[in-house]
Amino acid sequence: MKKSLGAKTLVYPTPVFIVGTYNEEGKPNVMTAAWGGICCSSPPCVSVALRQAAHTYSNIVVKKCFTVSIPSEKNAREADYFGIVSGRNEDKFTITGLTPAKSDFVDAPYVQEFPLNLECKVIQSVEIGLHTQFIGEIVDVKIDAALAEGDDPIIEKIKPLLYAPDSKNYYGVGEEIGRAFSIGKDFK
Amino acid sequence: MKKSLGAKTLVYPTPVFIVGTYNEEGKPNVMTAAWGGICCSSPPCVSVALRQAAHTYSNIVVKKCFTVSIPSEKNAREADYFGIVSGRNEDKFTITGLTPAKSDFVDAPYVQEFPLNLECKVIQSVEIGLHTQFIGEIVDVKIDAALAEGDDPIIEKIKPLLYAPDSKNYYGVGEEIGRAFSIGKDFK
Repeated sequence: MKKSLGAKTLVYPTPVFIVGTYNEEGKPNVMTAAWGGICCSSPPCVSVALRQAAHTYSNIVVKKCFTVSIPSEKNAREADYFGIVSGRNEDKFTITGLTPAKSDFVDAPYVQEFPLNLECKVIQSVEIGLHTQFIGEIVDVKIDAALAEGDDPIIEKIKPLLYAPDSKNYYGVGEEIGRAFSIGKDFK
Repeated sequence: MKKSLGAKTLVYPTPVFIVGTYNEEGKPNVMTAAWGGICCSSPPCVSVALRQAAHTYSNIVVKKCFTVSIPSEKNAREADYFGIVSGRNEDKFTITGLTPAKSDFVDAPYVQEFPLNLECKVIQSVEIGLHTQFIGEIVDVKIDAALAEGDDPIIEKIKPLLYAPDSKNYYGVGEEIGRAFSIGKDFK
């Protein structure tokens, strides 16, 4: 039997995106965003949706670029902290001891210690309501070399975090369930 | 050491969204989309990005609404099949034996047997490149009553699927890592 929960932001999974930017003075900042995802294959694009009040929002408006760093399970405390305080009031890199790495293609820093890092140029911004969605063209993806076999990222080594919006808990990735474009073929 | 993988659609996690629509004749269809996510808290909105060639794209343009059903691990074969074939050529509900349930608020069907179902009204569409992003206001969320305690959905019972874009594998949700807006407080 189905039960209605009303109009709410409840899907699984949502990501834990760490959005990196510089402010006008070049000071690096990061914030945590669960509202986002891939939104185009060609050009490759990822979206992040932010409130206008966020320091990161102002930085993206000025710099027209951002990074997305994907935290590992072991980075959960830092990733959570990045979502609790504002970069206007605290220097999140200094306080966590993490390193703002200079991007190769965009004027935004990524988190050196986090396993996967995307460099993105803003190509559109969409006013929706409380949140503004920035669509970033992914111009490069970097990975810790030890977490890939050749050019293939190994998710079991990366151990990315997931977020469950309703309970507000973080989770790891579980067991492999099957291969896409394959396990459903029997129905054809 | 970081290694560059180039410009590609690689983030973790991406969701497994089953997008439900009717065509002009009222025939129900579903397709699988991994490009999407929550994009606004107020109004609550979810985005799905589709190629114009998709049957679902045409249906959304006509009906201006869609549903998102979240499959459970045990639905992985059906969810995968929904992404392999086109609704123009096959009746995906009949072939899988799943039930197109009538929504309460929008003119689009959801998958009765899948644990979580969102009813969405399109409020914006954004041309990005190969994909067009539809932004849907979430007007209701339904859950199998047995998978919630009161109004609280239990992710350990829902067992949603995740998708890993690069390896093209499905995964389950793993262990709880910690509580958001909490485990990072020690840095303050």
